[in-house]
Amino acid sequence: MGVSEQHEAGQRQERFDRGMEMLTRVDGEGGQRVIDALADINPELGHQVVAWGFGEIYSRPELVPRDRQLVTLGMLTALGGCEPQLEVHINAALNVGLTPTEITEALLHSAVYCGFPKALNATFVAKKVFGERGLLPVAAN
Amino acid sequence: MGVSEQHEAGQRQERFDRGMEMLTRVDGEGGQRVIDALADINPELGHQVVAWGFGEIYSRPELVPRDRQLVTLGMLTALGGCEPQLEVHINAALNVGLTPTEITEALLHSAVYCGFPKALNATFVAKKVFGERGLLPVAAN
Amino acid sequence: MGVSEQHEAGQRQERFDRGMEMLTRVDGEGGQRVIDALADINPELGHQVVAWGFGEIYSRPELVPRDRQLVTLGMLTALGGCEPQLEVHINAALNVGLTPTEITEALLHSAVYCGFPKALNATFVAKKVFGERGLLPVAAN
Amino acid sequence: MGVSEQHEAGQRQERFDRGMEMLTRVDGEGGQRVIDALADINPELGHQVVAWGFGEIYSRPELVPRDRQLVTLGMLTALGGCEPQLEVHINAALNVGLTPTEITEALLHSAVYCGFPKALNATFVAKKVFGERGLLPVAAN
Amino acid sequence: MGVSEQHEAGQRQERFDRGMEMLTRVDGEGGQRVIDALADINPELGHQVVAWGFGEIYSRPELVPRDRQLVTLGMLTALGGCEPQLEVHINAALNVGLTPTEITEALLHSAVYCGFPKALNATFVAKKVFGERGLLPVAAN
Amino acid sequence: MGVSEQHEAGQRQERFDRGMEMLTRVDGEGGQRVIDALADINPELGHQVVAWGFGEIYSRPELVPRDRQLVTLGMLTALGGCEPQLEVHINAALNVGLTPTEITEALLHSAVYCGFPKALNATFVAKKVFGERGLLPVAAN
Repeated sequence: MGVSEQHEAGQRQERFDRGMEMLTRVDGEGGQRVIDALADINPELGHQVVAWGFGEIYSRPELVPRDRQLVTLGMLTALGGCEPQLEVHINAALNVGLTPTEITEALLHSAVYCGFPKALNATFVAKKVFGERGLLPVAAN
Repeated sequence: MGVSEQHEAGQRQERFDRGMEMLTRVDGEGGQRVIDALADINPELGHQVVAWGFGEIYSRPELVPRDRQLVTLGMLTALGGCEPQLEVHINAALNVGLTPTEITEALLHSAVYCGFPKALNATFVAKKVFGERGLLPVAAN
Repeated sequence: MGVSEQHEAGQRQERFDRGMEMLTRVDGEGGQRVIDALADINPELGHQVVAWGFGEIYSRPELVPRDRQLVTLGMLTALGGCEPQLEVHINAALNVGLTPTEITEALLHSAVYCGFPKALNATFVAKKVFGERGLLPVAAN
Repeated sequence: MGVSEQHEAGQRQERFDRGMEMLTRVDGEGGQRVIDALADINPELGHQVVAWGFGEIYSRPELVPRDRQLVTLGMLTALGGCEPQLEVHINAALNVGLTPTEITEALLHSAVYCGFPKALNATFVAKKVFGERGLLPVAAN
Repeated sequence: MGVSEQHEAGQRQERFDRGMEMLTRVDGEGGQRVIDALADINPELGHQVVAWGFGEIYSRPELVPRDRQLVTLGMLTALGGCEPQLEVHINAALNVGLTPTEITEALLHSAVYCGFPKALNATFVAKKVFGERGLLPVAAN
Repeated sequence: MGVSEQHEAGQRQERFDRGMEMLTRVDGEGGQRVIDALADINPELGHQVVAWGFGEIYSRPELVPRDRQLVTLGMLTALGGCEPQLEVHINAALNVGLTPTEITEALLHSAVYCGFPKALNATFVAKKVFGERGLLPVAAN
């Protein structure tokens, strides 16, 4: 490995480390498990989720982590078929300070724009996450 | 609770009751199970599915229940990732008078507009529902 | 061209002719314009829309043309971004006997499953088609 | 019109009025224009956008208007093909207190979950809205 | 059955046979299993997957089988909710000569256009398929 | 700006330059126009399209540029509503060596998986691009 390649590898590691710190803070164990599961099939995808998604985008101060999760809940609900990612990000939403009531209200709100089926699918993921964290029942909303 | 709040709560209950009657007629037990499952996580979403979706929209006479299910089968197939809702609504389609042949033909038709993968996903939900109701095999279509 | 190739070309033409008859009955001029527009860029796609979509699927008696359009309106609304096809098929829906009120009610119904944005996009296509055919205003629905 | 029908019509008007107040506060003129455009094609859809979407869902205090717009921007970006609604809601986002920088950052964030094409489509709608409101260029983000 | 009906049935069988040969070559057992599973619920859908999808489209020489699978991987990843079809087609991609590294790289590439959630969902299907075929770990990509 | 910040800014510029070289090679002027259009609304999004999308992902040798465009055509067709990006990438497909016939065949192929409406939308974008580059009519396919 020449000097220039060492330099580039160093840059790459720096961004990964910065992303890993952010990933751990936001997604907790759920994020780490996804990266681990990618190790034997697509390690570069795992690297980019961390180094780019978290190291470069999430770490920008222009939008606070709580607000990023509100946008993310909206996107994952609307995309459909992203239940595994919703599970990680509903946990993340709780980790960065959204209340259970705010989360369920955001999913009720999603019915207006995405229709009931996608709102229901997302809500049943929230039920699983809230159940695991002892947050059920959600106070009458 | 003041007079005005009592008044509003009464309105809310009226719409819910009208919707519940329609939901039971169309979706049968499947609809009720969805509402029950929402009770501890997002009861307001359950209320709105019933009071708005069924009490206000389904109950309008401008489109008969059978036709609403044809449109609904098309939408749920096209959206993708809505297998739980398709299960409820393929049951509903049978409940309101669509024949098994009309349902499978609608799903064959969906291949033209949504492609084979979504047509196949919806068809395998129909297979599950028809199997549970003793409707297999569907007469040569 | 050998006997077997002549045979195959004959089959191909037969299916196309059968499809063209159905296309004309359902979509009218709108369908023909789409096929014409494909002639210099992807004539095989035009052939398959006619020969397969209309010659093989639409021509099956298991679902009547009116019901096929109800399913199709649901799918095109749910898919999103299919305004040109919705324009053809809202015309088709009128051609095969759906009333303006049934069509707008189907689009109102779609809000429950797809959300307001897609219901609105489809409704504004209906407004264009109904306007061109002198069907506005739709009687109070 | 009997007593019971008068009662129901009164309820219906009450919810519409409450929704109209909220719609005006959030969407401003853009919302009103959508409702007006529905008058001759699907007035019931216009009624329900106002009475249900704004009167019943938006008016709930469990999520503040600013947060509802963050979720909504995420959903409309992810759904795709909803540029007319994005235009209304990027205006709405500014109306309820999101800064131009927060909005563009949310759209940058959307690239992580929805990919660049949908992030770009939404961003060019923001460019149109910000341009009309004299908010360009957005301070270096 | 008259002469004309015999003629048409013969055509139908010819196209099916040609499609079955292609299906077996591309999808192997996975394709056959899908067709078998349709026999009692929607045999015409199974017929059309084979006779049209494979007999008429896949069999055209304008795009080689390897390239068709690259396009198909892109489409199934982007559509979302098509994990069963992705499983068949990641097997197909290997069958027609795409290397494991090319497949995982295509899925990494999909993150740019579809976002990480859909890229991850598709990658975990690849992990299942590669695991069953003894292709894990994929050499450092 | 301290030493560490200078270092980071240098890294950032390096990746951007590498990406710009790739973007120009693949997308030509169309790519540059998109980046320019982002300058006053979301320059960071423009930076990331170049530095990440092209500098980090496109520049990897595991999949050749021609194959990346086949996957990309599939994704953009399936996503729907991405006509502006399809225009850039059908140009890109021609730039990196796909023939007009391969491109139209890929779009015909997409009908099998995405349905006719999305195949048609993508094909009419190809018609525009091919027309501008004097490539119509495409030889009988």
